[in-house]
Amino acid sequence: MNKEREEAKKYLKTAKGQIEGILKMIDEGRYCIDISNQIIAAEKQIRKANMLILKGHLNSCVKEAFLNNSGEEKVDEIIDVFDKLTR
Amino acid sequence: MNKEREEAKKYLKTAKGQIEGILKMIDEGRYCIDISNQIIAAEKQIRKANMLILKGHLNSCVKEAFLNNSGEEKVDEIIDVFDKLTR
Amino acid sequence: MNKEREEAKKYLKTAKGQIEGILKMIDEGRYCIDISNQIIAAEKQIRKANMLILKGHLNSCVKEAFLNNSGEEKVDEIIDVFDKLTR
Amino acid sequence: MNKEREEAKKYLKTAKGQIEGILKMIDEGRYCIDISNQIIAAEKQIRKANMLILKGHLNSCVKEAFLNNSGEEKVDEIIDVFDKLTR
Repeated sequence: MNKEREEAKKYLKTAKGQIEGILKMIDEGRYCIDISNQIIAAEKQIRKANMLILKGHLNSCVKEAFLNNSGEEKVDEIIDVFDKLTR
Repeated sequence: MNKEREEAKKYLKTAKGQIEGILKMIDEGRYCIDISNQIIAAEKQIRKANMLILKGHLNSCVKEAFLNNSGEEKVDEIIDVFDKLTR
Repeated sequence: MNKEREEAKKYLKTAKGQIEGILKMIDEGRYCIDISNQIIAAEKQIRKANMLILKGHLNSCVKEAFLNNSGEEKVDEIIDVFDKLTR
Repeated sequence: MNKEREEAKKYLKTAKGQIEGILKMIDEGRYCIDISNQIIAAEKQIRKANMLILKGHLNSCVKEAFLNNSGEEKVDEIIDVFDKLTR
């Protein structure tokens, strides 16, 4: 497993723990804005995980593809993902 | 618990399950783009949960505050959250 | 015109100027990442303008609606916008 | 000028026109939600322009760098941009 994937896993595990915490906050009737800020924090972790996955992708699969002269397809694919990511 | 919070919990639970699935995908060495798309799907659930929390907030705390003539502070608070949410 | 709208106009005018600058950068063949960063800067101004418009909306129309006991519809409307804004 | 830059210019020009329209909407005292939706539309055009710039970047500079065995630095740079783009 490349180092980006290892790191991505850490962020995802943090996010999972945060979501468990948020579910508890809701059950405890905590203030909306506090819950919302925690959700934003969890989202941030998940987004970081995604960036790492995509970084690893560029440095492996996309690189490989460019060296084999077939990178354009891979670029379309990753741009598609970034497009979804940014809306 | 208001209905928005109930619904938000469902989305958060779905997101949690998706994150567990993504961790497994990483361990199985699945294709980056597939992992990334799953991460985007999880993020979407989390964002929906947040929207519901904030909707509930507007319909309860912010409403209350307006009726008590102290809404502006609450508006600043929620705009702050939306600001973070949209970057 | 409320103060939020006045301020929003400033941000929009800045963004317009930045876009003109970006078009020039493209014509001059400037480096992609520099162009991209400028685009992000322009987007930020536009987003700030939007936050101001929505803040003004909450403090006027939504407030009014709550005082007239018809706020829920307005909340759905603004949540819809925030939903689009955050994807 | 590569085709992505040509296309990006079109989106930026559309966005510029939309911003001019939005400024007029504000002066005319139009409804907040309508203004906000127009701002979102303009933001979308700008974001599309950015995606095109970055796509062109991947297909030229990043490709070049990979072929010259110096791609990792370029990947860091573009991931940085995407990171800002997605918050």
